[in-house]
Amino acid sequence: MAAPANSTTFSGDVWAELRLADARDVPHIHRLIHQMAEFELLTDLFAATEELLTSTLFPSPAPPPFTSFTALILDLSPSPLVPDSASTIASRCLDLSASPLVDPEAAAFASPRGGGRITAGFVICFPNYSTFLAKPGLYAEDIFVRAPWRRRGLGRMMLSAVAGRAAELGMGRVEWCVLDWNKNAINFYEGMGADVLPQWRICRLTGAALDKYKGNQEEAADRKAAE
Amino acid sequence: MAAPANSTTFSGDVWAELRLADARDVPHIHRLIHQMAEFELLTDLFAATEELLTSTLFPSPAPPPFTSFTALILDLSPSPLVPDSASTIASRCLDLSASPLVDPEAAAFASPRGGGRITAGFVICFPNYSTFLAKPGLYAEDIFVRAPWRRRGLGRMMLSAVAGRAAELGMGRVEWCVLDWNKNAINFYEGMGADVLPQWRICRLTGAALDKYKGNQEEAADRKAAE
Repeated sequence: MAAPANSTTFSGDVWAELRLADARDVPHIHRLIHQMAEFELLTDLFAATEELLTSTLFPSPAPPPFTSFTALILDLSPSPLVPDSASTIASRCLDLSASPLVDPEAAAFASPRGGGRITAGFVICFPNYSTFLAKPGLYAEDIFVRAPWRRRGLGRMMLSAVAGRAAELGMGRVEWCVLDWNKNAINFYEGMGADVLPQWRICRLTGAALDKYKGNQEEAADRKAAE
Repeated sequence: MAAPANSTTFSGDVWAELRLADARDVPHIHRLIHQMAEFELLTDLFAATEELLTSTLFPSPAPPPFTSFTALILDLSPSPLVPDSASTIASRCLDLSASPLVDPEAAAFASPRGGGRITAGFVICFPNYSTFLAKPGLYAEDIFVRAPWRRRGLGRMMLSAVAGRAAELGMGRVEWCVLDWNKNAINFYEGMGADVLPQWRICRLTGAALDKYKGNQEEAADRKAAE
């Protein structure tokens, strides 16, 4: 099968780096979130803009990583990478000599870090809290790898790195969510040692249903009704 | 029915206040978390200590409320309360004249704020993040009211107050979890405008399964296996 025009073929050794993101990564993060919404059949919920992502994910001054909303970027490089102690979270070498990889979107996802790198995925995580443990944990809101780069161990690399960081920080748990129809993902997570909790359901108050509570109007209405 | 010894009977007007907690509330928070674990049939997961709660929930200096882990306390007072602009989140008056309330644990839950107040519940919440909205939200880890004080509108008051604060802060969502067998809670939450999401499942990596990732040993092992 010939590669589509503008696509890039990767073969031989390719170096993967999971690194802290910064505001220069926002355009790619925005498009990756949209791809994730498409994969999850949830584009009707997609309302992110580059401006909102910049202001909410990259405030100034930046809090230390993993103490607030933390964005990580997965970059792939055709040449060896020198880890940067300030931003590299994990790195590894992929051997693609047995099965070269065609990335039709490589040019569109050129990494802002340059050097022929491309961006292939991202993680958004932030601290959560377990009262039963009386300890913080990390919640991974998203772990996403673009389609051509899947099934190469990169999702495992990303989740392992987040789990490793949580364990090193003395946190009690790493949690994330999965759609119950995504059996591949469930098998993968269980293989990494995670429990998929059968009984808990997420409750969500959003949009107009949330705005109703502004100024505690609902509470006032409730009080009135109870009189 | 005679009230048990040491119990306190509340009747007529009682004033409820939801307020920011401080380190003086830790002993009550610790016992309330244990009561919640009993209610959820999850005492095997209970590992909280007062020392851990103090260090993780009340660091010094304290970050602004709702920007990090935030503990709220529900106090009930036999006399009218003057709201404190620095700590009061919501307040209301309960009319118990039609059905007086016996609290067998009132003495044990005397509020550290004094004035004959007792502590009847708590909330732990913290910011989460929606990539689809590109906005922070609030996640309520726990919303708990001690048994004798239930079905008096206090859970609604607490959740309304959290939702109100989130809406006023421009947040996009309030989320929390419920056990799928807790039909009373599900009906109550839906009545407040929440969606209970049927498809999402929580994945959790904890204990020994999490410690495995310390120092990225798992990642190294995986790399080895793939060679």
